[in-house]
Amino acid sequence: MVDIIRFDGGATGGWRVTDIRTQRGEALPKIERVAIREPAHSPPDPATAWSLRGLVSNLRYTTRAEADTLRGVQEGLGRAGSLRAALIPIRKSAAWWALAQDERRALFEEVSHHTSIGLDYLPAVARRLHHSRDLGEPFDFLTWFEFAPEDSPAFDRLLERLRGTAEWHYVDREIDIRLERAG
Amino acid sequence: MVDIIRFDGGATGGWRVTDIRTQRGEALPKIERVAIREPAHSPPDPATAWSLRGLVSNLRYTTRAEADTLRGVQEGLGRAGSLRAALIPIRKSAAWWALAQDERRALFEEVSHHTSIGLDYLPAVARRLHHSRDLGEPFDFLTWFEFAPEDSPAFDRLLERLRGTAEWHYVDREIDIRLERAG
Repeated sequence: MVDIIRFDGGATGGWRVTDIRTQRGEALPKIERVAIREPAHSPPDPATAWSLRGLVSNLRYTTRAEADTLRGVQEGLGRAGSLRAALIPIRKSAAWWALAQDERRALFEEVSHHTSIGLDYLPAVARRLHHSRDLGEPFDFLTWFEFAPEDSPAFDRLLERLRGTAEWHYVDREIDIRLERAG
Repeated sequence: MVDIIRFDGGATGGWRVTDIRTQRGEALPKIERVAIREPAHSPPDPATAWSLRGLVSNLRYTTRAEADTLRGVQEGLGRAGSLRAALIPIRKSAAWWALAQDERRALFEEVSHHTSIGLDYLPAVARRLHHSRDLGEPFDFLTWFEFAPEDSPAFDRLLERLRGTAEWHYVDREIDIRLERAG
């Protein structure tokens, strides 16, 4: 069994939007706050402009060695100092999904170093990946990041490096939503 | 976008059940026929005892070389001579899903030879794999097979070989539903 998480964008919720930028593809309606709902069947607030769903699933590219390395360094969501967050919904192209497993893995890590780039920003940047594609959602992935205010520049560099990779040639829609914890 | 397929077990449908065996775990209610519905939002017939949903998704373990080999040999569903079919819903254990990608791939192919065993029965046995786990379904996979009556013994051997592999130690529920095309 897998747990579905829902991100509701609207006028209420524990995270206040400080910036929302469309990196690629169609924009999302502007919103003031984001609420994270678990379980997903709690009804959206009436003021919700959009709801995006995803689930925490099994590893798709990560090897055992990489998973163990990550586990030794990363920290969880909900740290007291994590007053900043980002929600980055991403869709990858049909060309990406038509690739075989070894081709996607090679682009992801051996070519683009996705995991090893992420490692450079641990434990400062905590993250949780949500899979959306198989739910028939408009995005394939929703990644939620949490970090301290002083780590915001490091987080920007992390995104800049990832967006410069060959893997990102296959990203055809990306929204960058920055948030701060609401008082 | 991905297409959801629904298998409705009940009293109607284009495939008549000839045998239904619980290989492992909890049984499914006995039924007389199976209907395959696309798209999934067509309502089930009132006499439907159970509905199982899955989607045709991207490759999860198959390499490009393996995919090209398969593509060169396999045939599609719906062949005139394919008067027999099997629907095999499978669930894998939590231990399987906790493995990293390289561990699951190694068990799947380098240890258990799942793809290469399947190759021995091509093009006689046509198949389509449907992913169900991320839909919150009771099974993780629904595999649909079609073959000619004279290839039924070969199909039995294919299943026997797969069920003897290390990969199958991680299967904790499996139902084997055999069908014939309804007149």
